[in-house]
Amino acid sequence: MSPVPSTADGPVTLINVFEVPDGRLAETVDAWHAARDFLVEQPGYISTELHEALGADARFSLVNVARWQSTGCFRAAMEKMQAAGVFRPAEGLRFTPALYRTRFTDAAPR
Amino acid sequence: MSPVPSTADGPVTLINVFEVPDGRLAETVDAWHAARDFLVEQPGYISTELHEALGADARFSLVNVARWQSTGCFRAAMEKMQAAGVFRPAEGLRFTPALYRTRFTDAAPR
Repeated sequence: MSPVPSTADGPVTLINVFEVPDGRLAETVDAWHAARDFLVEQPGYISTELHEALGADARFSLVNVARWQSTGCFRAAMEKMQAAGVFRPAEGLRFTPALYRTRFTDAAPR
Repeated sequence: MSPVPSTADGPVTLINVFEVPDGRLAETVDAWHAARDFLVEQPGYISTELHEALGADARFSLVNVARWQSTGCFRAAMEKMQAAGVFRPAEGLRFTPALYRTRFTDAAPR
């Protein structure tokens, strides 16, 4: 079993912004679920929330906001997922994942 | 005083994705705070969380995720903010606000 990644650098937020070609939303959501079902089993996974735009003409139809215990946990999980070939994006799909820290919040901690 | 907007269509999430020109991050965060200080006083505001990218080369340096009691509340607040001229974006800033519903979550409710 691979070593559990360090959580020294504290929780991080993965935000993935999806630009979905017309007619590919359902397919993209299915592919997202397959990836999420894999990632939820990985060390350091905390939670996720998939947001779907109300407007059909939104530039970003889907935005995923996930919490991880550390950058290391997230990167290790991504490597495993890529190796397992779990995420199969729809043709023409553009997605922009990046890690974020909370700079300001007035929401209750999660 | 303007009528309080209906909350019939239930809570919505405003996600605003910022493409910030080099050297304009601090200015953009200041402008964001001015807008947030105005919006927090508006009917239907629930919470907000401003995320800052860990990587300096991220396509989207800032992503704001805010919760509102309804679409109507959010739109009324935006109209008032625009009329008040509160948000002064930095030169070259591109921002893409849109309203979202949660399509899937395994996080605790907020």
